[in-house]
Amino acid sequence: MALLVEKTSSGREYKVKDMSQADFGRLEIELAEVEMPGLMACRTEFGPSQPFKGARITGSLHMTIQTAVLIETLTALGAEVRWCSCNIFSTQDHAAAAIARDSAAGVKAEEEFEKTGKLPDPNSTDNTEFQLVLGLIRDGLKVDPRRYRKMKERLVGVSEETTTGVKRLYQMQASGTLLFPAINVNDAVTKSKFDNLYGCRHSLPDGLMRATDVMIAGKVGVVCGYGDVGKGCAAALKQAGCRVIVTEIDPICALQALMEGIPVLTLEDVLSEADIFVTTTGNKDIIMVDHMRKMKNNAIVCNIGHFDNEIDMLGLETFPGVKRITIKPQTDRWVFPDTKTGIIILAEGRLMNLGCATGHPSFVMSCSFTNQVIAQLELWNERSTGKYEKKVYVLPKHLDEKVAALHLDKLGAKLTKLSPSQAEYISVPVEGPYKPAHYRY
Amino acid sequence: MALLVEKTSSGREYKVKDMSQADFGRLEIELAEVEMPGLMACRTEFGPSQPFKGARITGSLHMTIQTAVLIETLTALGAEVRWCSCNIFSTQDHAAAAIARDSAAGVKAEEEFEKTGKLPDPNSTDNTEFQLVLGLIRDGLKVDPRRYRKMKERLVGVSEETTTGVKRLYQMQASGTLLFPAINVNDAVTKSKFDNLYGCRHSLPDGLMRATDVMIAGKVGVVCGYGDVGKGCAAALKQAGCRVIVTEIDPICALQALMEGIPVLTLEDVLSEADIFVTTTGNKDIIMVDHMRKMKNNAIVCNIGHFDNEIDMLGLETFPGVKRITIKPQTDRWVFPDTKTGIIILAEGRLMNLGCATGHPSFVMSCSFTNQVIAQLELWNERSTGKYEKKVYVLPKHLDEKVAALHLDKLGAKLTKLSPSQAEYISVPVEGPYKPAHYRY
Amino acid sequence: MALLVEKTSSGREYKVKDMSQADFGRLEIELAEVEMPGLMACRTEFGPSQPFKGARITGSLHMTIQTAVLIETLTALGAEVRWCSCNIFSTQDHAAAAIARDSAAGVKAEEEFEKTGKLPDPNSTDNTEFQLVLGLIRDGLKVDPRRYRKMKERLVGVSEETTTGVKRLYQMQASGTLLFPAINVNDAVTKSKFDNLYGCRHSLPDGLMRATDVMIAGKVGVVCGYGDVGKGCAAALKQAGCRVIVTEIDPICALQALMEGIPVLTLEDVLSEADIFVTTTGNKDIIMVDHMRKMKNNAIVCNIGHFDNEIDMLGLETFPGVKRITIKPQTDRWVFPDTKTGIIILAEGRLMNLGCATGHPSFVMSCSFTNQVIAQLELWNERSTGKYEKKVYVLPKHLDEKVAALHLDKLGAKLTKLSPSQAEYISVPVEGPYKPAHYRY
Amino acid sequence: MALLVEKTSSGREYKVKDMSQADFGRLEIELAEVEMPGLMACRTEFGPSQPFKGARITGSLHMTIQTAVLIETLTALGAEVRWCSCNIFSTQDHAAAAIARDSAAGVKAEEEFEKTGKLPDPNSTDNTEFQLVLGLIRDGLKVDPRRYRKMKERLVGVSEETTTGVKRLYQMQASGTLLFPAINVNDAVTKSKFDNLYGCRHSLPDGLMRATDVMIAGKVGVVCGYGDVGKGCAAALKQAGCRVIVTEIDPICALQALMEGIPVLTLEDVLSEADIFVTTTGNKDIIMVDHMRKMKNNAIVCNIGHFDNEIDMLGLETFPGVKRITIKPQTDRWVFPDTKTGIIILAEGRLMNLGCATGHPSFVMSCSFTNQVIAQLELWNERSTGKYEKKVYVLPKHLDEKVAALHLDKLGAKLTKLSPSQAEYISVPVEGPYKPAHYRY
Repeated sequence: MALLVEKTSSGREYKVKDMSQADFGRLEIELAEVEMPGLMACRTEFGPSQPFKGARITGSLHMTIQTAVLIETLTALGAEVRWCSCNIFSTQDHAAAAIARDSAAGVKAEEEFEKTGKLPDPNSTDNTEFQLVLGLIRDGLKVDPRRYRKMKERLVGVSEETTTGVKRLYQMQASGTLLFPAINVNDAVTKSKFDNLYGCRHSLPDGLMRATDVMIAGKVGVVCGYGDVGKGCAAALKQAGCRVIVTEIDPICALQALMEGIPVLTLEDVLSEADIFVTTTGNKDIIMVDHMRKMKNNAIVCNIGHFDNEIDMLGLETFPGVKRITIKPQTDRWVFPDTKTGIIILAEGRLMNLGCATGHPSFVMSCSFTNQVIAQLELWNERSTGKYEKKVYVLPKHLDEKVAALHLDKLGAKLTKLSPSQAEYISVPVEGPYKPAHYRY
Repeated sequence: MALLVEKTSSGREYKVKDMSQADFGRLEIELAEVEMPGLMACRTEFGPSQPFKGARITGSLHMTIQTAVLIETLTALGAEVRWCSCNIFSTQDHAAAAIARDSAAGVKAEEEFEKTGKLPDPNSTDNTEFQLVLGLIRDGLKVDPRRYRKMKERLVGVSEETTTGVKRLYQMQASGTLLFPAINVNDAVTKSKFDNLYGCRHSLPDGLMRATDVMIAGKVGVVCGYGDVGKGCAAALKQAGCRVIVTEIDPICALQALMEGIPVLTLEDVLSEADIFVTTTGNKDIIMVDHMRKMKNNAIVCNIGHFDNEIDMLGLETFPGVKRITIKPQTDRWVFPDTKTGIIILAEGRLMNLGCATGHPSFVMSCSFTNQVIAQLELWNERSTGKYEKKVYVLPKHLDEKVAALHLDKLGAKLTKLSPSQAEYISVPVEGPYKPAHYRY
Repeated sequence: MALLVEKTSSGREYKVKDMSQADFGRLEIELAEVEMPGLMACRTEFGPSQPFKGARITGSLHMTIQTAVLIETLTALGAEVRWCSCNIFSTQDHAAAAIARDSAAGVKAEEEFEKTGKLPDPNSTDNTEFQLVLGLIRDGLKVDPRRYRKMKERLVGVSEETTTGVKRLYQMQASGTLLFPAINVNDAVTKSKFDNLYGCRHSLPDGLMRATDVMIAGKVGVVCGYGDVGKGCAAALKQAGCRVIVTEIDPICALQALMEGIPVLTLEDVLSEADIFVTTTGNKDIIMVDHMRKMKNNAIVCNIGHFDNEIDMLGLETFPGVKRITIKPQTDRWVFPDTKTGIIILAEGRLMNLGCATGHPSFVMSCSFTNQVIAQLELWNERSTGKYEKKVYVLPKHLDEKVAALHLDKLGAKLTKLSPSQAEYISVPVEGPYKPAHYRY
Repeated sequence: MALLVEKTSSGREYKVKDMSQADFGRLEIELAEVEMPGLMACRTEFGPSQPFKGARITGSLHMTIQTAVLIETLTALGAEVRWCSCNIFSTQDHAAAAIARDSAAGVKAEEEFEKTGKLPDPNSTDNTEFQLVLGLIRDGLKVDPRRYRKMKERLVGVSEETTTGVKRLYQMQASGTLLFPAINVNDAVTKSKFDNLYGCRHSLPDGLMRATDVMIAGKVGVVCGYGDVGKGCAAALKQAGCRVIVTEIDPICALQALMEGIPVLTLEDVLSEADIFVTTTGNKDIIMVDHMRKMKNNAIVCNIGHFDNEIDMLGLETFPGVKRITIKPQTDRWVFPDTKTGIIILAEGRLMNLGCATGHPSFVMSCSFTNQVIAQLELWNERSTGKYEKKVYVLPKHLDEKVAALHLDKLGAKLTKLSPSQAEYISVPVEGPYKPAHYRY
C-alpha cells in the first residue's frame, strides 16, 4: 500500500466489471464489517480527527470484500484512496512491493534515459509481468521523462504485507535502491502468525472444495514448505483426515513437522502416491513438469504461496502434445499425451485460495489490515519529522499487541491484568508490551 | 430408490434446466468416476451379465454429480432408470421413503375413494410438501382411480438411505402399511458411519464457507444433536478452531461428546454467546423463532439434519415486522424489528450442505451408492423367490464389508489376511464377515 | 463377575501382599470415589434397600483401586463379596469368563469321572493357565466329585465385561455348554464405546511413558487392529505427534482408519521403520519373533488387547541365543545374538496398561462397573422368575442410558428434554430409550 | 551451565542417594543415548579432537537420565565436569542463572564486606532459596573474603537454557552486573520451540497421570499462560479430551489461543468449574490461596512453569486450620477447615513434570543439550579471543539449524536441497541459514 501525495496516473484508476453487483457487494461488506472489529475500531478511534486529511493512498491488493472494508476505513479517516486490483498477469502476492519496484525501475529508467537516451526494453526480462512494467515505463518516458521521479518525491512511504513483497523491500534496502521509508507489516505477529497461518488453514480446503469437490479425508496430501503458510495448510489437510507429507529445505521447520506427526520427505519420494500437492514456499521451480508427469491420474496441483512460478506452468503449457481441458474457470485438467493420465491444476498455478475461493476470511484480514492502517498512520504522521529513513521498519510491539487486543471482544475473550508487583517481577510495564522483540509466539 | 416394473407417470420425468451445462456436467462426472471406485467396480463385476435387464428403477435423490454416476451405473447394469430431482418444496432428505409414503397414501386414498367417494384434502395437513402429494393424489384419482394400486403391484421393493426415511419405513412396517420389501441402506456401516459422519465433516464447513465466508476459527459453534451427523459436524468445527458446544437428549451421545472435550449444554444456555448454530437431530422444532431473537447479530443458523422444520422457518417468516434481506441465493439475513439485529439463515432452513455447497463428496457417496446398487440387485434378483417379505431388511454384513473393500485400493491401503488358525481362534471365517451383528464400529 | 449363593473355595480367598499399604490404598480409594459417580449413585439409590442381602458375589478382575470401589459398592448394597486378583499366570483379560469356563470344565470333568473314572490331564492343553485349571479340577475331584456341580447349582448368573470373555460365553451358548444366565456387559455402549476406547486412549501413553519415558512425538507407531481398543490407541498416539499406521483384517475398520488420515498397511510393510508396536486385536500370533528380528534397535513392542499370545513371547523366549536384559520390572530389552540389536517388550507381552501403568482411570471404569452392578442386580432380582435362561443377554438400552446419565453431572453437562410432540415425531418415549437396538453410536 | 577453569568448592560435589541403582541408571542411559542423536553426533564429531581439554564445567540442572548423557558427552569431549543436582529447596528451573546470580551476589557481598565489614543478612529476603544463598555467602566470607571474586575471574562464561534464567541474565546485563559472557540457549529455536513446547506437551499429562491417575477426558482444565510452555500444555490437555481454558495477559497469545478454539477467560471466571489448574507463566502469584478455597473438591493444582511461587504455597501452608494429607510423595491433598473440601497439589507447587514424572523425554532434551554443548564449545574456544564480552548472546542461526539437522535421521526425515538458482531467488545460501533473524517459526 503506497501513500502518495498526488493523484496517480489515469491508467491505474479503479474499474469494476459489473456495476449491477454493487448491491450484493454492499451487503457482503456489511457482513464483513461485523467480522472486522480492528478496522471498525480504527474508524471509531481515529475517524473524528481525520488524520489522513490530505493524504492520497494508493493500494495494490486483491480487490476482495475485505479490501473494500479497508479502503472504506482509510477513507473514513480522511484519505483519498485509489486502488488497483488483480489482473490476469498479476497474482498480486507482492502488492505494494510491485509499486515500489516499478517506481524504482521507473526512476532508474528515467535517469538512464536522461543520460543516454536509451529506452527500457521489455524483452530484457523473462518475467511477463515485468515486461509489461517496462513497456509502461518506456511509453511513459516518451510523454513525461520525469514522471517517476516526480512520483517518488511525493511518495511518503509504503507499507507491505506479503512475505515475498517484504523480501524484495529488504533486498532493495540492502542494494540501496529503496527510495522511501517502508513498513514491513508482514512481520507483525498479528499478521504473519495469523493471516499466513490461520488464513491459509481456512482458505486451502475452501479452495480445494470449491474447485474440485474432492473428498480430502483418506487422501495423501503433499505440502511443499512448512513455514507459516505451510503450517496452516498442513494443519487443514490433516484435520480433514488427509495423510500429510511435508517437503522442506530448513531442518528446523522439518523438525517441527515431525513433532506434529507429519513425515518429511522429498517430492520425488511421494510423486506416485499423493493425491493433492500444494506449494507454499515463496520460491520458484518447486513442482516441475517432469514431476507432474509422474503423478497419479487426477492428482490436484495447486499453489497458495507466491507467484505461479512455484509450479512450472511454462513447462506444462509447452509440453509437447499436452492437452488442456477446462472443467470450469480456474480448474483445468492437463492430459499428458503418452500416459493419457491427467493432473488438475487450480487457478492456473496462481494463488488458489483467491482464484478458486474468496481468499482469507474477514476476521483474520481485519488483523492484517488494522496493521496496515496503523502503519499508514505512522508513515503519514511522521512524514516530516525524519523519524523514518529510506529503510524497512517493523511496527513496534505495543501496536502489534493493540491490534490483537482489538480482536478479542468479538470472540468473547477476557484478558488477565498484571499486578504492579507481577509486572515488576517479570520486568515489563503493566500495560505491555509483554514480550522481548525476539519472542517467537 | 424404488424399483418399478413399469413406466412412471409422465409428471415425474427428468427435466434439466439448462442443456448447455451438459459438457461441464460430463467433465465433472468423469472426475467423479475416479473418486467412486465402488460404483466403478460394480460396473466391472456386474456389467457384463446385465443383471438389471428388464428392471425399471425410479430414484428420488438429490440430483448431484454423484447421483449421475449412480444412475449411469444402474444403466450399465441393464436397468431402465428414471429419476426425480429436488424441487423447491422438497429437501429430499427422505428420498425413496417419500415415494413409499406417497404410494401408501395413494393406495389408501384410492381404497377410501372406492368405498366412500371421498377425495383426499390437501388442507388436512400442515406439511407443505404433503399438501402437494395429497393434491396430486386427488387429481390422479379423478383420472385413474386404481393408478397407485397398479403401481404398488409392480413395485418389487425399495432401498432407502436416509436416517429419517428409514425411520418412516420402520413405522410403516410396525403399523402394517408397508406395501413391499424395503432394504435399509442407511444402517449399513459403510453408509451411516461414513456418509453421515465423514460426509458431513466435509460438507458442513464447505457450506458455511461458500455461503458466508465466515472465519470458523475463534467462533463458538453449537451443534444440536450428536448422532453420526452431529459427530461429523462437531469434529469439523472443532478442527477448524471453533469452540463447539453440543446439545443432546441422549445421555450416551452426550457422554461421548464430553469424552471428546465438547461441553454439553442446552440451547438456552448458549443463545447469546454462539456464532454458528447447526441442527443435526432428525427431529422438529429444534431452533425456534424465540431462540433466534436472542441470538447475536449475524449469528448463522443452519440445518444439515433433516427437514427445514428443525428450524422454525414458519415462525421466522411470520414474525411480525421481520425483514428478509437476501445476500445471495440460499443466504438470507433476517432482521428483527425491535432489536434491529439480524441472523443469517442458510438454504432457507433446508439442508445447507446441498443448498449452499454441492453435498457430500464423491468418494463417500460411492460407499453409500454401492450399497444402493447391491441392495437393488438383491431385491431384483430375489423378486420371485419370496426371500423378502413386506418388511425392512438390512444388508448382510459380508456385503457391507465388500463395499468397504472396494474403496481401499483407491486409498493405497493393504489389508492383513487372517491365517486359518487365527480365524478359528476368534471363530470367524477367514474371508469374513469379521464382526458380530451388534458390533458398533 | 460371578454371583454365588455359597461361599467360594478357600483357595480363592483374597490376599494382599503388604498390609502396610492399606492407608495409601484408602486415600486413593477416596480419591477414586469422587471420580466414580455411577458407583456412588448406586450406593445412594440402592444402598438403603440392601438388594444384595443374601447374595454372595465372586469377582475375577484386576485388583485395582477402581475395583476396590466396585467391591465396596456391592458390599454397600448388601452382598458378601469375594475377589480373586491377578496372578502371574493370568492377564485376567477374560475375567469372569474364566470362572464360567472353569465351572463348565469342572462340571464336564465330574461327569466324565463319574462315567469313566478318568481324571482330567493338565498335559492335554498348551495353555499354561488352563493346565492349572485342569490340575485344580483333578485334585478337587479326588476330594469332592460333585463340587463343581454343587457350585453350578448355586450359581445364579455371571456378568462379563471383556470382549474376549464375552466371545467365549457366546461360544459356550452356541455349543450348549453355558450352565447359567450371563449378562454381556462388554457390549453395553457405556462399556465398549467408553472403557475400550477412551480408557485405552488414556492408558496406552500412560503405560508407554512410565515404562520407557520415550518421546512419542516424531515416532512411527503401528497399531495392530482398529477396533474400539485400536481406535483409542491410534488416537492417543496420533494426538501425541506420532505417525500412526494401522494393520487390519476388516475392510470396514480399515476404511475408518483411512478416513481419520491413518494409513493401513501390513505389519511386514512397516517392520523396519516403526518405533512402537501395539497389539489390540484380541487374536493370537500378531507379532511373531521373525517380525521382531527385523525391527529397529530399541523398537518398543507391547500388547493392550488380550492375552500375551498376541505377541509371540514363546518364540522370543526360546529364540537361540536371545538375551533378556531387565531395565526395570515390566520393561525388558531382548537382544538378538546376530544383529546385537534389541527390542523392548513391555509387561512381558501382557496388558501393558495394567502392567506398566495403573490401568484405566476411575471415571471410565465407573461406567463399566456401574453396568456390572446393574447387571448383578438384575440377575439377582430375577433369579427365581425364570426371566433369564442359560443364555447370554445384553442390558436393556434404558439401563445403558441410565449409566451414562449418572456420569453427566460430574462433567457439568446439561441434557435437553424432548417435548412430547418431538418424542412422538421421532417415535420414542420422552424419557428414552432414544435409539433403536442396532444404533452404533 | 557454568564453565570454570578451576575446581568448584567441595560443597557442590556430586552425591548420589543409592549406588545400588547404578546398574539401572546405566541401562536407562543406554536407552537414552539411542534417543539423543544430537549429543551422540557431538561425540562423533568433536570427541577425537578433545576440544574441552583443560575445561572445568559445572552444571546446575535437574539430575535426570538425559542430563547424564549430557555430562558424559561433555566428558567425552575432554571436559572435567561437576554437577549439582536438585535439592528440596530448589526447583532448578533457573539452572545456571542461579550460579550466575549467586556469583554476582557473592562478588557484591565481598566488595561490600571489604568496604563496610557488613555481612549479608539472609533475613533481608523473602525467597527461601535466596536466604540459603546469602547464608552460604555470609559463612564463606568468614573463611575466604575473596572466594567469589576468584571464582569470577576463572569463569569463562555461562550458557543458560531456561526462560526465567535468561530473563535474569538480561536484567543483569541491563544493570551492568553481568560478570562474564553468557549464551542464551533458551532462545535457540531448537530449544524454546521444542523443549518448552513439545517437552511439556509430553510431560504434563505424564505427571498428571503418574500423580493422580485422573481421567483427563471430560474434565475442564485451566492453563495459566499461553507461551511456549502453555501452548504445549493446552495442546496436551485438549488432545486428551479435556475442555481447556486459557488465562493470558498478552493479547497476542490470547488471540492465538482463540484461533485454536480455546476460550480465554480470567481465573476468577472458572474457579468453580475447572478440575485441573496448571501454571505456566514464569510469573509469581498466579493461583492464590483465596482462589484455591473456591475450587471444586479434589481440583488438581500444579505448576510446570517456574518457581513454586506461581502457586501461593505459602498462603496455603499458613492458612488457618488447613490440613495436609499426603496421598503419596509429591501428591498432597489440602483440606480447608470450613468447607471440608480439598484440593490436590502436585510436587508441592514445584515443577510437576519433574516432581511427579521424569521430566522431558530424551529426544527433545537432546535438542536442548546439543545447543548447550555447542554453546559451551563456543565460549571455551573463544575464551581468549575477546569475541564475547560480558553480555548475553544467542547462538547463530546456522548452529540452530545444525542442531535440528542432527535430529532428522532418527525420525526418518529427508530434506529437500535448494538449487543454486532457487537459493539466489530467495537470497539465501544453498546450505543455509534459511531464515532471517526475526523469523518466528
